[in-house]
Amino acid sequence: MSRFAYVNGTYARHEEASVHIEDRGFQFADGIYEVIYLYKGRLIDTEAHLDRMERSLREIHMDMPMSRRAMMPIIKELIRRNRLRTGLIYMQVTRGSSKRDFIFPEDTVPTLVITARRGAAFDPNKSLQGMKVMTMEDMRWARCDIKTTALLPASMCKQVALDAGYSDAWLVNKEGFVTEGTSNNAWIVNAEGKLQTRPPSHEILNGITRKSIIELAQKEGIEIVEKPFTVEEAYNAREAFVTSASACVKPVTQIDDKVIANGAVGLTCEKIAKIYADFLEKA
Amino acid sequence: MSRFAYVNGTYARHEEASVHIEDRGFQFADGIYEVIYLYKGRLIDTEAHLDRMERSLREIHMDMPMSRRAMMPIIKELIRRNRLRTGLIYMQVTRGSSKRDFIFPEDTVPTLVITARRGAAFDPNKSLQGMKVMTMEDMRWARCDIKTTALLPASMCKQVALDAGYSDAWLVNKEGFVTEGTSNNAWIVNAEGKLQTRPPSHEILNGITRKSIIELAQKEGIEIVEKPFTVEEAYNAREAFVTSASACVKPVTQIDDKVIANGAVGLTCEKIAKIYADFLEKA
Repeated sequence: MSRFAYVNGTYARHEEASVHIEDRGFQFADGIYEVIYLYKGRLIDTEAHLDRMERSLREIHMDMPMSRRAMMPIIKELIRRNRLRTGLIYMQVTRGSSKRDFIFPEDTVPTLVITARRGAAFDPNKSLQGMKVMTMEDMRWARCDIKTTALLPASMCKQVALDAGYSDAWLVNKEGFVTEGTSNNAWIVNAEGKLQTRPPSHEILNGITRKSIIELAQKEGIEIVEKPFTVEEAYNAREAFVTSASACVKPVTQIDDKVIANGAVGLTCEKIAKIYADFLEKA
Repeated sequence: MSRFAYVNGTYARHEEASVHIEDRGFQFADGIYEVIYLYKGRLIDTEAHLDRMERSLREIHMDMPMSRRAMMPIIKELIRRNRLRTGLIYMQVTRGSSKRDFIFPEDTVPTLVITARRGAAFDPNKSLQGMKVMTMEDMRWARCDIKTTALLPASMCKQVALDAGYSDAWLVNKEGFVTEGTSNNAWIVNAEGKLQTRPPSHEILNGITRKSIIELAQKEGIEIVEKPFTVEEAYNAREAFVTSASACVKPVTQIDDKVIANGAVGLTCEKIAKIYADFLEKA
């Protein structure tokens, strides 16, 4: 079966889908992206992702490339053409193709690329294998709240962690606080037994899954503390996990050489995963 | 006349030259670039640019896409096909096209794109019109010595400066020292009359033109202090200018609302521009 991608008005065969070499996404990382989870035919948190895309674009002085009313049928058509039930919808908007210049070009047509790819349905039981994360300096720029494609720093950090035998990195700012994972938000159940994650700021991506889980957990009467935590606090946590649109909920059972609690997946993480799986089923 | 670009083994018509939408240069800014100045048929500082490209690639765990012996004929052929005498050669290497993943893919073929574009020959007299720069927070990542295409932060800073009526930004670190311009190195003639620019570090790009000028100036008996300077020191400088491969030497006569010295281009800057123009003529 052929795979298709949407590029500026055309549903192209995936292997032939291309952008110009002077697309500013290629030469300047001058673009924004979003990844939406498609679960059993249903797009999860679409409005929140498009809200965030609109905000990210605004922060880099761009508008949405088209209205949501125009964009939604394209996403749906791409899902249909790829015969997808569960997977990831990747959307990237760039400032378009223009003679290379640091200054933003005027009157260029933005580039919109959408790809769709098959993935597994989140299964809270299967997904709950603890991963090991490695802490390292957060060397990214000062505006990680903007979801740009300038992802090399995050990609490099993840690779360093992998090369050292870990599954991901937890990035740490100059003050010693964990900011987030390379492509997910970081959570702990702290030494007092409270579920804790840092509040949104310019230092982290304001996770859509993070926000959904906060709302879902609060409905279940689980208290959440939105406060930064240090590496030391993470070492001494009762539980640790990450959340993202693509991984949903994923436990962390080791941070650097410190095994978290007894090394088993904690009860709170299991409960959050279960709550989130229920939410996906009902979405 | 048609314009050509080199993309992975092919000399394509510029307007048709493209890369795959899953090229990591497009989705992750996972690539390195260099700009070489072509002056009256001669490539300036080619070896130094290729050395830096090799270093940048090594820092992101990549090799050169081919040997220099293989690369040089391509650059020359591209210059010939574009009938270029003076202008800019832009080279970009990315980790290639691969299924989207933060982890570096193995065994992908790197992407090599080279473009050539017409430009003016550096004329120290014509080019010596003072520009106004605006200081602002350096919000870029911690490894600006690596010449990656994750240029959105620098591009945004330049645009902010432009929108405020300036020609460029001078970026300032948390300690209050000027790091560099958005795509050039910053210099002053300090209050003591010494030519000053900050030493290479992870905070700035180790400029090739910067290095050439240091060597050329020293041969002429001009003393150079390699030491960071603050915004305050820049305000009180006798002269200020920037250097880069594309602009060569460009005076700065105003920083924020402070006119530098009497607002005229200084003698040292004029001399440096003259020395560099002579170097280009003899290169």
